[in-house]
Amino acid sequence: MTEQVVTPWKVEGKIDYLKLIERFGCDPIDGKLIKRFEKVTNVKAHPWLRRGIFFSNKDLNSILDDYEKGKQIYLYTGRGPSSEVMHLGHLIPFMFTKYLQDTFDAILVIQMSDDEKFYFKGNSEGKRVEDYNRLTYENAKDIIACGFNVDKTYIFSNFKTCGGDLYQNTVRVLNSVTGNKIKAIYGLDLDCTNGQLVWPSFQCSPAYSNSFPDILHKDGKYSDELPDGSKSYVGEHIRCLVPMAIDQDPYFRMARDFADRYKHQGYLKPSTIHTKFLVSLGGIGAKMSSSGNEPTLYLNDTMKEIKSKVNKYAYSGGKETLELHKKYGGNLNVDVSYQYLLYFCDDDLVLRDIAHKYRSGEMLSGEIKKIMIEYVSKIIQEHQDSKSKITPEILRKFFTRNREFDYSRKERSEIELEEDSVYDNYGVGFDREFGAKPSEEVLEYESKLYTF
Amino acid sequence: MTEQVVTPWKVEGKIDYLKLIERFGCDPIDGKLIKRFEKVTNVKAHPWLRRGIFFSNKDLNSILDDYEKGKQIYLYTGRGPSSEVMHLGHLIPFMFTKYLQDTFDAILVIQMSDDEKFYFKGNSEGKRVEDYNRLTYENAKDIIACGFNVDKTYIFSNFKTCGGDLYQNTVRVLNSVTGNKIKAIYGLDLDCTNGQLVWPSFQCSPAYSNSFPDILHKDGKYSDELPDGSKSYVGEHIRCLVPMAIDQDPYFRMARDFADRYKHQGYLKPSTIHTKFLVSLGGIGAKMSSSGNEPTLYLNDTMKEIKSKVNKYAYSGGKETLELHKKYGGNLNVDVSYQYLLYFCDDDLVLRDIAHKYRSGEMLSGEIKKIMIEYVSKIIQEHQDSKSKITPEILRKFFTRNREFDYSRKERSEIELEEDSVYDNYGVGFDREFGAKPSEEVLEYESKLYTF
Repeated sequence: MTEQVVTPWKVEGKIDYLKLIERFGCDPIDGKLIKRFEKVTNVKAHPWLRRGIFFSNKDLNSILDDYEKGKQIYLYTGRGPSSEVMHLGHLIPFMFTKYLQDTFDAILVIQMSDDEKFYFKGNSEGKRVEDYNRLTYENAKDIIACGFNVDKTYIFSNFKTCGGDLYQNTVRVLNSVTGNKIKAIYGLDLDCTNGQLVWPSFQCSPAYSNSFPDILHKDGKYSDELPDGSKSYVGEHIRCLVPMAIDQDPYFRMARDFADRYKHQGYLKPSTIHTKFLVSLGGIGAKMSSSGNEPTLYLNDTMKEIKSKVNKYAYSGGKETLELHKKYGGNLNVDVSYQYLLYFCDDDLVLRDIAHKYRSGEMLSGEIKKIMIEYVSKIIQEHQDSKSKITPEILRKFFTRNREFDYSRKERSEIELEEDSVYDNYGVGFDREFGAKPSEEVLEYESKLYTF
Repeated sequence: MTEQVVTPWKVEGKIDYLKLIERFGCDPIDGKLIKRFEKVTNVKAHPWLRRGIFFSNKDLNSILDDYEKGKQIYLYTGRGPSSEVMHLGHLIPFMFTKYLQDTFDAILVIQMSDDEKFYFKGNSEGKRVEDYNRLTYENAKDIIACGFNVDKTYIFSNFKTCGGDLYQNTVRVLNSVTGNKIKAIYGLDLDCTNGQLVWPSFQCSPAYSNSFPDILHKDGKYSDELPDGSKSYVGEHIRCLVPMAIDQDPYFRMARDFADRYKHQGYLKPSTIHTKFLVSLGGIGAKMSSSGNEPTLYLNDTMKEIKSKVNKYAYSGGKETLELHKKYGGNLNVDVSYQYLLYFCDDDLVLRDIAHKYRSGEMLSGEIKKIMIEYVSKIIQEHQDSKSKITPEILRKFFTRNREFDYSRKERSEIELEEDSVYDNYGVGFDREFGAKPSEEVLEYESKLYTF
């Protein structure tokens, strides 16, 4: 005799149902309960109840309690649509559910878990997401045929209900990575919650344009309308660019790997563009953060607070005494004010001037902090002004999906380009110190100052 | 010097960006690329590009290629809304994104990953799903303030876009179970795909009535309207009953555990009711399945096919020869036809008669098969008739969510109950053989026949 195995994926061996009830912590349906069922519902117990076919329960009495009190209850069952046609065994729960619907006059929701089938059957027999979704509607006919009351029943495809096109892509990604890969990429393992393990895929999916067909492919090519009124985008994708801080890159390596695996379905690898981190006021080696203990400039800080924080916390590359500073100058690499000016002072000439003056010792720490405060305050003040003008209507409009978008592109006249040599000093080749290099003597002196 | 750590959750140590580029397999943004950027877009490179602040990329050239060809591209960035107010560092990617939007005249989608923050910050500071969702709208103001073009920008809350209320519950469940718990319950581990690991939570969430507030709580209590036009259900839940085959129970143990953890938020444990499996035609020890090699009765089988399959494959409890059968009778426990009649022959008197006649040897295998074929054919024929009447309109109506449902409950007159002793023989106490017990002699004979 094979030992019994009962999981959602495998049933094997001769099953001792009473043992199962015990193992699963359920309760048997006994005559007492059936009697109460009839008493409360005023409906004769179904033969399958009577005959111990529906034999086990958990809290059926609570349903009866509520029903007895006149409270509403609802029914939920489901079907993983994995094949063109259902077999008789599949019908049992639905037939019984129909009976329960009639008995309790209850609303019934039926989850067609086309996503689950994709997860667990994957691409077997060449099936794709679209195929499992199609089987939802096929199988639903078999379910409806059991006689459910349309006015009390809602059947839904997970693919189409749980987020639509976007979710559908999420599912594709979810299915393309194993837990081990997630562990390798993110260091997430079984100690993490499911939400954590699954998150990367959710972050990837908006990087494919067919996640937003209504916005990005309004006049594109679509499948015929499906029974739930939805359509699938089947046209060409458009490419996506993802600007982000560099720490987000692992997500998009995964997003790109995925697109590569799905290129035969028209998926395009999202492009990425990465920023460094704005350093903390406390100095280099930490990114600005609201979670750590580092002093942080918040967007709702007053101008007074900004000034005070910068003066108090902004790590300075200046020297300890006026005399030493005049002699050795300010270290541009570690000076936080200078780092911020690299972000917020747009004018190269102005910045070059600051660099040279500060590096030479002509400009003092207090002075460069003051300049930085001016630039940063302006940015934050403008931001606050702009924010104060956001009406609820504007906010709502941003969150509204079903509306007109502007796809026009401006005509622009050609601009004059710089010499090649100018470009050579852009990007990673950029000299952040504008040639304001310290002397050997200064370097030697400063080498003793910093441990990082 | 601390070693550099750069993950989406942690940034530590002094960062060597060129090494990072190498480690992450990205490309540096050099002057050549910046030149091309200007040439293609006819827009001056942003200072942050020039200065190596946005310093790394992957396939920016492909974006430029497409832009050059007049093809549409789009932008995607995001924000995990974890705090009431964003800080300056947060602004960098958005300010640059605004620049890119202007430069490329591109549609931009902004994912507010309130779900991610719930996954990774959990209930810290007492925050709940609703709080993270609220922060989405708070933080969005900071983002909008960067000056995005409303006609080209779509901001969305994952909670509200990726499936709405149902998804929101899924997220709650996802966040309540670790990978280890999933492993313990389902045997799923890191060798599984993310989709598999995550699936159980998706199956749980429809068991909470607030997943379907529009259907189940139409006139219930809701929060004020949120900026995307959605509302959150904040009233009492109604209880759910889940009819299913017993193998699905692990899901609902989890669903119940979850509800228990969330009872302070009004969640109710779903009730469950379980069925045994309809045995395979081939005999007990296997449930009917369309995936195995067992002979299976499909709902689109012709009546001729049903007859042929049953006659050919249905495991018989009858004896080898007519003589032996007359002497020892049919074994009701192993006879598949009898098992099916337990499902499909509703009339106890008829079934009792069959049981006694077959057990005594009076009824032959061919005869009980014939009876079973009649019952099963009727079920399947009725099913096929019913299915054939499903018009596309009916199918569509089932899949339509936004419509009227019928919440009425029928008035029923009281029915007469059976004696207590009758109920004693119902449910798990039911005698499937109707007292048609074999003699000791038969039992001894049969004990040599079956190995299971």
